Amino acid sequence: MSIIEKTAGTTDRRLSTAQKASVVQELRGLLGTRNVLSTPYDLTLYEYDASIERGKPDIVVLPSSTEEVAAIVRLAARYQIPVVPRGAGTGLSGGAVPIQGGIVISFARMNRILEIDIPNLRAVVQPGLVNLHLSNALLPQGFYYVPDPSSQRSCTLGGNVGENAGGPHTLLYGVTTNHVTGLEIVTAEGEVIEVGGMTCDTPGYDLTGLLIGSEGTLCIVTKIIVRIVPVPESVKTMIAVFNTMDDASNTVSEIIASGVIPAALEMMDHMILQAVEADTHAGYPMDAAAVLLIEAEGLKESVTEQVEQIVAISKKHHARLIRIAANETERQLLWAGRKNAFGAVGRISPEFYVQDGVVPRTKLPYVLRRIQEICDRYDLKVGNVFHAGDGNLHPLILFDSQKPGEVERVRQAGHEILAVCAEVGGSITGEHGVGLEKQAEMALIFSDVDLHVMQQVRAAWNPNELFNPGKLFPLPGRCADIRHLSSYESKQTSRKG
Amino acid sequence: MSIIEKTAGTTDRRLSTAQKASVVQELRGLLGTRNVLSTPYDLTLYEYDASIERGKPDIVVLPSSTEEVAAIVRLAARYQIPVVPRGAGTGLSGGAVPIQGGIVISFARMNRILEIDIPNLRAVVQPGLVNLHLSNALLPQGFYYVPDPSSQRSCTLGGNVGENAGGPHTLLYGVTTNHVTGLEIVTAEGEVIEVGGMTCDTPGYDLTGLLIGSEGTLCIVTKIIVRIVPVPESVKTMIAVFNTMDDASNTVSEIIASGVIPAALEMMDHMILQAVEADTHAGYPMDAAAVLLIEAEGLKESVTEQVEQIVAISKKHHARLIRIAANETERQLLWAGRKNAFGAVGRISPEFYVQDGVVPRTKLPYVLRRIQEICDRYDLKVGNVFHAGDGNLHPLILFDSQKPGEVERVRQAGHEILAVCAEVGGSITGEHGVGLEKQAEMALIFSDVDLHVMQQVRAAWNPNELFNPGKLFPLPGRCADIRHLSSYESKQTSRKG
Repeated sequence: MSIIEKTAGTTDRRLSTAQKASVVQELRGLLGTRNVLSTPYDLTLYEYDASIERGKPDIVVLPSSTEEVAAIVRLAARYQIPVVPRGAGTGLSGGAVPIQGGIVISFARMNRILEIDIPNLRAVVQPGLVNLHLSNALLPQGFYYVPDPSSQRSCTLGGNVGENAGGPHTLLYGVTTNHVTGLEIVTAEGEVIEVGGMTCDTPGYDLTGLLIGSEGTLCIVTKIIVRIVPVPESVKTMIAVFNTMDDASNTVSEIIASGVIPAALEMMDHMILQAVEADTHAGYPMDAAAVLLIEAEGLKESVTEQVEQIVAISKKHHARLIRIAANETERQLLWAGRKNAFGAVGRISPEFYVQDGVVPRTKLPYVLRRIQEICDRYDLKVGNVFHAGDGNLHPLILFDSQKPGEVERVRQAGHEILAVCAEVGGSITGEHGVGLEKQAEMALIFSDVDLHVMQQVRAAWNPNELFNPGKLFPLPGRCADIRHLSSYESKQTSRKG
Repeated sequence: MSIIEKTAGTTDRRLSTAQKASVVQELRGLLGTRNVLSTPYDLTLYEYDASIERGKPDIVVLPSSTEEVAAIVRLAARYQIPVVPRGAGTGLSGGAVPIQGGIVISFARMNRILEIDIPNLRAVVQPGLVNLHLSNALLPQGFYYVPDPSSQRSCTLGGNVGENAGGPHTLLYGVTTNHVTGLEIVTAEGEVIEVGGMTCDTPGYDLTGLLIGSEGTLCIVTKIIVRIVPVPESVKTMIAVFNTMDDASNTVSEIIASGVIPAALEMMDHMILQAVEADTHAGYPMDAAAVLLIEAEGLKESVTEQVEQIVAISKKHHARLIRIAANETERQLLWAGRKNAFGAVGRISPEFYVQDGVVPRTKLPYVLRRIQEICDRYDLKVGNVFHAGDGNLHPLILFDSQKPGEVERVRQAGHEILAVCAEVGGSITGEHGVGLEKQAEMALIFSDVDLHVMQQVRAAWNPNELFNPGKLFPLPGRCADIRHLSSYESKQTSRKG
């Protein structure tokens, strides 16, 4: 949920009524009438994603093939209209919001699995495929696709590529970029090219790596080649309960430093535990300062050994209770608590602001103390539920926008938290992306020269800034100057994480 | 060893005597006299790398700091002189050869480990650090750096980053790009920036991923942040002996498809086995059609289980013998045979040409038959020793340049082999890079549009082509037109691989 002011975008690219009619007519010729939406009623759905950003598209199109996408891009280039790709609209940073209008390309019709190649451990999919649908198709053969954002029941692989999505299991297995070996894309000139391929590490520049996480600003992805992996033989899930955040944080550091890398290592603090337990009844202790949710997986013997090591390290750091899920039902219940945590917080606060920062994991105790100190100073309540093993924090700051000045305090506190993350050598976003939400904060971790170099890359790929304009980069003159949000309008609570 | 013709480079960038004197004087002022080499005698060493390419630098400099590197780049930009970074000169594709002259930056003095951070599993090093020296420094603490090129006793981390180096253990763990999380670089403008960092997946474009493997054409790397990992608890190494190449290849495919990913999975064919056994006496059978060298590592229970599965699959595909190294001495001996294979071939042929292609591993039986058929047709002997698990082939074509027409036949056969790799969806290089050697073959796997897009990226970073000019990209008009090598001058046998 963004509370940072941003431009509404230059409006000079907005189409006149006559231009729009002519573009719509051409698009209908290319795609058929039912695949071109242009009435205000039809467009309303496409103004949003899961952030609070809004921007009205001029036209929404639903292509069915790469060739259609290329034709749309060439047409847009001819009219100099922005083009914004959209998966399921579950993004948390405004990436799919057409802030300067133009054409939104929905990938709802390009949602097929094109090929499953078990011996080479690859699948080829269209960008509109829902993340979980891929694993569901693979499971009968004993395989799955690893990256698992909390929104995996609805988010698409194309969106995952755009934002370089993560999830709880990225600790052991890496994020989207570690699981995609090739892409078919449409360039700003409307050319179709393939980058990477079925094999790893093709020669020349690693354009696949460059394009993953580029938030729609460099190209439009039309096909994705992903790695698939065998389902692990054994999984054990446990919770370790602590009376202090420091003990929990130090347990995290020592587990990783010992060389045990669990499949997932999540932390929830006191405030979150209270909300989660009231909501899910998963058996989390409501009086603890912190709980670690830890999952080990692999061959059953190595899982047994990992669990022993994790238990020993947790005890050394004064875990007051360690509970291992006895069966799959208990395991699913523990995960349900974690995955519904953001929603559960909705029970105790009308609104909250989810931050997404990363710190070296040895800095967790210090940064968690600083977060508490910052929120105390602004008289705000904060809870923490996050991917501790990765050092990927998600502080949730509670607020009520009806209270005068509260939004402003939340905004300031959020910015200070990210500044602390940057100060200790961390980053301003772990997995939610920059989008419209964190353009100003890019200046916390990148120098003008850094940003200039990135902008040169964008200029090489997207010279007229027609691909997802107004995203990712700080706006001129605003880097160090985060201003007041004049019209904070959302009343809704984000349920994503 | 390249036998493809390439341009000697435009010579218009060569410095006049007066210009050179003035540049040398300025460089001495920056770096001190002893760190600027300019006599013909001093420069001779820097004409080569481990390929047969040659190119004389005008000046060689040995900076000691990032600031000095930046000053050199700014000076070179002012004079419009090429700049070519150089590690240990062990590259096999001519990457460090200054084909258009200019300044070679040797990183021999920037060879320090700057920081080892065990809890965060990171080390920060200078580019001139020898690959193996990093693991040697980490081993007492139970950690190591994974990528292990065969030249790891001499090659540098900077060179590894430039070429995105691999090695036998990249099957399980990935190549250099999977083990580097951040870089400090000098841009073409002589600015120093950091990309990536200690944490994974920083926001904005993944410039770290883009720069790794860019073969010195985009920037000069001055600092490298690498992942370090714990030494596995247990390692088992075995050989499986086969009477046909097809059986060995099908064993490889089935091992991977079964979900067992060994740490290493290497194949040697009949010709290589004869050379290796005569040289190393490691106990390889000299009459077998193919041997797989397989290593499993991890917790001891999981290694035991993996070995059982590998044995069962090998037997199913008619392995006539499976031998597990009984102790570390036997294990080291088996590896010595593999790692010295290229050298051992020097016993049976005065010269050989090592190819480096990649194919989907299910295509191995087909491609190995095609390699044999191609070499038979050209009346050439060929041996295969390669990273089978990755589908990364290294056919060694034997020849004698004294025999009229033989070089030409080798050249044609090599090109046809790469064309077969490309045809089955593979790639023209797995780990040796493009450099000067495979510029023409880039056209086998990339379209003009693909290459144009890459050139736009180069233009954004390296607008005047001062960074390692004349590398990586096909030369105009030569893509589909590989010409005769007019002066094939090398008599030496490459000992690298």
